[in-house]
Amino acid sequence: MPRIRHITLPQGFRAAGVHCGIKTSRQEDLAIIVADKPAATALLTTSNQIIGAPVQWSRNVLPRGYGYTRGIVINSGNANTCVGASGLADAERMARYAAGAIGCKPKELLVASTGIIGKPLPMKNVREGIEAAARRLSRHNDRAVLRAMMTTDTKEKYAIVQERIGGEAITIAGVIKGAGMIAPSLATMISVITTDARIAPRLLYRTFKEVSADTFNAVTIDSDQSTSDTAVVLASGLKSKKIKFDTKMYHRFARALREVCLELAVAMARDGEGATKLIKITVTSAATRKDAIAAAKSIAQSPLVKCAIHGNDPNWGRILMAVGKSTAKVVQEKTTVKIGPITLFSSGAAKRISKEVLEKLEEYMRRDIVEINVNLGLGKEQFVAYTCDLSQRYVVINSKYHT
Amino acid sequence: MPRIRHITLPQGFRAAGVHCGIKTSRQEDLAIIVADKPAATALLTTSNQIIGAPVQWSRNVLPRGYGYTRGIVINSGNANTCVGASGLADAERMARYAAGAIGCKPKELLVASTGIIGKPLPMKNVREGIEAAARRLSRHNDRAVLRAMMTTDTKEKYAIVQERIGGEAITIAGVIKGAGMIAPSLATMISVITTDARIAPRLLYRTFKEVSADTFNAVTIDSDQSTSDTAVVLASGLKSKKIKFDTKMYHRFARALREVCLELAVAMARDGEGATKLIKITVTSAATRKDAIAAAKSIAQSPLVKCAIHGNDPNWGRILMAVGKSTAKVVQEKTTVKIGPITLFSSGAAKRISKEVLEKLEEYMRRDIVEINVNLGLGKEQFVAYTCDLSQRYVVINSKYHT
Repeated sequence: MPRIRHITLPQGFRAAGVHCGIKTSRQEDLAIIVADKPAATALLTTSNQIIGAPVQWSRNVLPRGYGYTRGIVINSGNANTCVGASGLADAERMARYAAGAIGCKPKELLVASTGIIGKPLPMKNVREGIEAAARRLSRHNDRAVLRAMMTTDTKEKYAIVQERIGGEAITIAGVIKGAGMIAPSLATMISVITTDARIAPRLLYRTFKEVSADTFNAVTIDSDQSTSDTAVVLASGLKSKKIKFDTKMYHRFARALREVCLELAVAMARDGEGATKLIKITVTSAATRKDAIAAAKSIAQSPLVKCAIHGNDPNWGRILMAVGKSTAKVVQEKTTVKIGPITLFSSGAAKRISKEVLEKLEEYMRRDIVEINVNLGLGKEQFVAYTCDLSQRYVVINSKYHT
Repeated sequence: MPRIRHITLPQGFRAAGVHCGIKTSRQEDLAIIVADKPAATALLTTSNQIIGAPVQWSRNVLPRGYGYTRGIVINSGNANTCVGASGLADAERMARYAAGAIGCKPKELLVASTGIIGKPLPMKNVREGIEAAARRLSRHNDRAVLRAMMTTDTKEKYAIVQERIGGEAITIAGVIKGAGMIAPSLATMISVITTDARIAPRLLYRTFKEVSADTFNAVTIDSDQSTSDTAVVLASGLKSKKIKFDTKMYHRFARALREVCLELAVAMARDGEGATKLIKITVTSAATRKDAIAAAKSIAQSPLVKCAIHGNDPNWGRILMAVGKSTAKVVQEKTTVKIGPITLFSSGAAKRISKEVLEKLEEYMRRDIVEINVNLGLGKEQFVAYTCDLSQRYVVINSKYHT
């Protein structure tokens, strides 16, 4: 039987996912992804001030966000968050059990958890799960690994890029879970990326941080932000010469990493809770990059815009409103609003559109990707944000009793 | 037949509301509220950078936000926004027609419009409406006035306070429309308050601005912000001695004005689109007032919190998440979260609650007012914000095709 592969495609990694009873369903709920030898690692975590114990643990492992680790232990079904002092002890225990089973130090393993909050982890199940997963570590379990990360996700989301760098073919593969910080009880974005490229931890971190600014951080589902968001890159270094900053190799690597992150981010937006459409928002000609980001995110976070797109309504007025309420500098007379190929507002007034164009627009609105373009006419900076529409299903999913 | 009265209860005001065909329904869509003589006036308008032509006109009338006017002309059904240069000319025409009919200068009249945007006002109807309303100005049309301001509002929202100031009884009455910046095509908050107290325009403005910070500005429905929000106080000065700053009279007046504004603001939150519950969020012991406001508004704007309350789910985790993502300083271990009378989170961990308490909590959640209390344990500042729950009906209302 052919096996789906992604996270262990780059050389030097093994992984396994198992069901150990944290989730009440039969779905996998515990995964380990390990590098055969210490791998250069870059870690990004939530900017929420309330953080889960696993985030605390992982920050303790990599206080500057980079260093060498052997991988990550992940569970779903329970976020190990807001449970008091036992939370950090439990996160540490997860690292210790896994370290014992694979033969490394606890401080060489990151931990990430997602699921309900405020309840202690069932540590007996977790321990059994870790031991079972450690026994099954291989290059044939990628699908179970990804499923063990998922909560309300409806799709298995992964991306693979291969690129020739300095004469050698390197692979970057990534998996992601999360309906974008919006799932019940704060389901979280967790992403793990593996590569066999060779790069120093510090440069890897710097690159990852830069890349995530317009990939992971360009996605918003509902403006809420999890307490447990975690994104990690592990580089085994088995396939390329060492990548040095600002070389041709570096730029190729950074571009490949961006491609993986962007594909994961867009897949996450598209799989947002209740989503029926992906919305891509491009703001151009902003006075500053900060303005471009603020304007694009304000549109992406506007419930009114998201409801309108859900209803196939080309409501440019709401788009203008969202731009106007943002911190970005906006001049009404200089702003142009397009939906798809059609200009709806420019020079301070609505464009008159023919019946023919209106029909074209209505057809466009029914697509499953809707693009919004706002030209601020004030400068040269731009930003692209991604979100999904706001449907009744979002409310249904998120008003169920979870606590 | 007894008549509902509010806006003309204070001495010195007349008003009328008529249907002139701006709305396709038969509901009133044009109103005039006038002071018999120039009244001290304070004006607050939206902070959105994209503004409607009527807001532009009113700002031209009162560039500093205060002065003397004869009143305001209001229409619903069309916001006269984003229609190009003709918009301001049409707003001016509204003032001119009304000024001609009541005998004052156009620059003595404010204008406010709410409804669809991007379409020119039907000026023939508007002119007929203004002339008809001017003929009917009296103290017996208050209900028609309020109905002429409404769009998706489901309730007529008004408030009246009488207070003895310096030995005389003054009246402050207010009307409000707006489901809180959330109605189709950006329906707007418009509020008009009349009083027969005597106060200088500048002091009236200062007081109104202060009062609105924790009344009108404490309400958020969905974080979106209209291009046309307008709130006005008109003081005829017929009933009290002149109110001077920081006197006993002043404090009584300010308190009475606050009471009217708060009642209007809360009524607006309760009438938010699709709302089934009012949510009152109190943040206490914040390090700074700015922090208290940021934390309270972050909770009030969180779709996840609003969905949870809609589903009667006492999901304190989402409340913590919303506080943590705000700009307010938050320390997990010092934060206490209560819903109604019940503490759910303190000292860094979830409170264990008995079955008895859980039943009490579940009963509490089914009420139509839910109170959330967050104590940040860091200082002495506090803020109260108001919002409503997020229901499927919100999505239904706002995903209909309007444009």
